[in-house]
Amino acid sequence: MDVQLVNPFIEATIHVLSSLAFVEAHVGRPYLKKDPVAQGDVSGIVGLSGEAKGTISVTFTKQCILKIVSKMFGEEITEINDEVRDAVGEILNIVSGNGRQRLRGLGKRVKGAIPTIITGRNHIITHITSHPIIAVPFETENGSFTFEVCLEE
Amino acid sequence: MDVQLVNPFIEATIHVLSSLAFVEAHVGRPYLKKDPVAQGDVSGIVGLSGEAKGTISVTFTKQCILKIVSKMFGEEITEINDEVRDAVGEILNIVSGNGRQRLRGLGKRVKGAIPTIITGRNHIITHITSHPIIAVPFETENGSFTFEVCLEE
Repeated sequence: MDVQLVNPFIEATIHVLSSLAFVEAHVGRPYLKKDPVAQGDVSGIVGLSGEAKGTISVTFTKQCILKIVSKMFGEEITEINDEVRDAVGEILNIVSGNGRQRLRGLGKRVKGAIPTIITGRNHIITHITSHPIIAVPFETENGSFTFEVCLEE
Repeated sequence: MDVQLVNPFIEATIHVLSSLAFVEAHVGRPYLKKDPVAQGDVSGIVGLSGEAKGTISVTFTKQCILKIVSKMFGEEITEINDEVRDAVGEILNIVSGNGRQRLRGLGKRVKGAIPTIITGRNHIITHITSHPIIAVPFETENGSFTFEVCLEE
């Protein structure tokens, strides 16, 4: 997988969190995911298909996503509820759309499926592929999250 | 969503479990999913896009999937491990491929993304869509699982 193809999603993630939730997300060093490492309390997944087939996912700790959603809504959210799930879906839809638009600029046309949200303490996400999976750690002032991309070219 | 579009995936699920794992799965009455009801210990998700956009997912209890995978491998599997995750990915890939092939027979061409597997006790799956989500309960002699389809036409 061409690492260049990850950048559109990194840029889209930073942009969306900044504009929707006024949260500054600092990107860490992307790495090749060997084991199923994305472990967290709330995840969003979007399947991609077209000229490349793949998946993007983002996994938040409870603390991190509650802070992001509280900032989005301008009120304190203290529990994982339907509003939080919808907000993660909205974030992921925009990241998917925005990232795929940037991918088109690199000559790669892919379509996105609808987002699926998973909630449950300490769940683990595994993408089933023989291709490399790139994990991108992000830090915010209220905790970390992991973004993952796999594109089978 | 045309309920007819769910049948290809129901047939594919019964076929795959029977041929791969010699497990007889009895389909219950499909229903419209209002709340995020698919709760379980191991889930697989595949995004769909093309002439329709959507997602299929299947959520197993630990007991049910361990029995299915034990039968697939012909040896007792007692823990959720990488082999189990790969097996759920394989099941879902075949259900997705087989189901999409049957969909083409109904004049609907969709592509599948790569499967993502979620493990974690009692996690909940929510599809983010304003369209109906159809949930299909299945029973096996070793427990139940839920299959969900959403296609935005």
